Amino acid sequence: MREKILGLLLARGGEFVSGEELSKVLGISRAGVWKHISHLREEGYSIASQTRLGHRLERNSGPLNKYVLGHNLGTAKMGREFVIRHEVSSTNEVAKELARAGALDGTVVLAETQNGGRGRRGRQWLSPQGGIWLSVILRPGLELKDVASYTLLAGVAVALAINKVTGLKAGIKWPNDILIRNKKVGGILAEVFGEWQAVDFLVIGIGVNANLGEQDLPPEVMAASLSLESGRPVLPVDLIQAMLRELERLEQLLLAGKLSEVLAEWRSMAVCLNCAVVVKEHKEEWLAESIDIAEDGALIVKTADNRLVKLYSGEVSLRGSRGDYNFN
Amino acid sequence: MREKILGLLLARGGEFVSGEELSKVLGISRAGVWKHISHLREEGYSIASQTRLGHRLERNSGPLNKYVLGHNLGTAKMGREFVIRHEVSSTNEVAKELARAGALDGTVVLAETQNGGRGRRGRQWLSPQGGIWLSVILRPGLELKDVASYTLLAGVAVALAINKVTGLKAGIKWPNDILIRNKKVGGILAEVFGEWQAVDFLVIGIGVNANLGEQDLPPEVMAASLSLESGRPVLPVDLIQAMLRELERLEQLLLAGKLSEVLAEWRSMAVCLNCAVVVKEHKEEWLAESIDIAEDGALIVKTADNRLVKLYSGEVSLRGSRGDYNFN
Repeated sequence: MREKILGLLLARGGEFVSGEELSKVLGISRAGVWKHISHLREEGYSIASQTRLGHRLERNSGPLNKYVLGHNLGTAKMGREFVIRHEVSSTNEVAKELARAGALDGTVVLAETQNGGRGRRGRQWLSPQGGIWLSVILRPGLELKDVASYTLLAGVAVALAINKVTGLKAGIKWPNDILIRNKKVGGILAEVFGEWQAVDFLVIGIGVNANLGEQDLPPEVMAASLSLESGRPVLPVDLIQAMLRELERLEQLLLAGKLSEVLAEWRSMAVCLNCAVVVKEHKEEWLAESIDIAEDGALIVKTADNRLVKLYSGEVSLRGSRGDYNFN
Repeated sequence: MREKILGLLLARGGEFVSGEELSKVLGISRAGVWKHISHLREEGYSIASQTRLGHRLERNSGPLNKYVLGHNLGTAKMGREFVIRHEVSSTNEVAKELARAGALDGTVVLAETQNGGRGRRGRQWLSPQGGIWLSVILRPGLELKDVASYTLLAGVAVALAINKVTGLKAGIKWPNDILIRNKKVGGILAEVFGEWQAVDFLVIGIGVNANLGEQDLPPEVMAASLSLESGRPVLPVDLIQAMLRELERLEQLLLAGKLSEVLAEWRSMAVCLNCAVVVKEHKEEWLAESIDIAEDGALIVKTADNRLVKLYSGEVSLRGSRGDYNFN
């Protein structure tokens, strides 16, 4: 019932809705409407009530809610279903379980906190309240070789959404760390399951340090949050919707055979192309110059003896001040 | 206890082991030994017993058993653990569950029958008693792009093993159907789970119509069994061991960076290279000539207007009599 009330208030786009109308539509007494409204306030929603006018919801208030998230989202697929949890091990784990059980293409899993958040290769990812921890289930009917494209595409979507919503200039470090002023504010963990020629499902996990304070950030990494970098809180609904819209737009490009356009966007947001990097691969470290991204997702680097090498699983780190090249 | 007795008899390689020795080593009475031996006979093991000499096991008798399978297997990894079930939905399903629960690299799952056996893309695969239904769990520390190599490698391993054990000339139809005289005797279903840059696990499912009669074969497909083609039953243990040895040898080639050698073996067993094929892709059908296998697993075909095209997810079927090219 409370979600229905939220939905009705949202549908009115910030206008007042009279208690009489709510009680009619919902088939409950006006006292009942009042009771639910006060419960919603207790849950954190900011609802203004005036005797003659009725009730008005401030959209960006309260916990994440599928009515709020779905309102004016404007996507056909991304977010067609929202699964919202308070605390999970990780949204990717929940998404994988749901995908195995048959969840729809475009289902989005969100959680307020993750107690077992992970980055790539099983690394820990701190996920306290205030961040955006989200996974999208995709059933794209693709081959395994296309997973790389989706991984890159997701990085572009997150960086662009941050840029649009906060005005901050977010960049991508290969393969898909999201950086602001060379500090990590987000990351992507794509996990896939399927046959070589027929992907069963792809889960794209996105973590963004949205409204985290200094005390919430891991001390050992160069990390930052959007709120710290911009000096003001980010509205989670806005950022989530923007990411889902970008994901959908970029996937459509990809499905239309326009990977080159996705890669062009990736290049334009890369924090380090044509710059010196340290490559870590198979426990060795060597210096190189990053040159380009390849269609298969590999980073093309030039070695000290001028050979071009494609990196698939190695790590790169930016090297000193030249790391800022192409950035800020 | 019975498995221990089997192990001891096997270790003696077909020699007689005295009841006294068995009772000493196992710490049970000679009457107890006798009781277990008769139970083993009831289970289908052929054990010869002579009063003065003791007991002797005929290796290729009785149900599949990890002691029998492991005896003289000679691999370091493939088959380091055997999980043997009577009936399963599919060995791939069991293997995936075990893999998610942390099963070791090289674990082999075997079942006498599958009630939900599947081919590629969810197609049904009849799996009655008499066939070999097996899955290998691999945790190769690979990238997704290497899954294609493993898929091809598995086809080579199965075809070679059939050849070695039965003398039948088995060939591979892209991507990895196993054919004898243009009839399907086996197939491979590789399923993968992991991150783009770090495969968590790979399950290679292998199905071989070993000792199936006419009545066990699906009528609508050109199918055959090894026993029907060779006119005599195949010894399952021999074939399974041969497949695991070939898998291990070929994986070692791959890990040593010698994919080109694996592909050379694949080519030498391909039933249709440089021959006319019908390509089915995206619900369209067109004629082409199959030319070669690519490093990324794609089949390179030449179109009617002489363009070279790489096939990833399409299907090919052999075209009339020319389909026998390179075969038999």
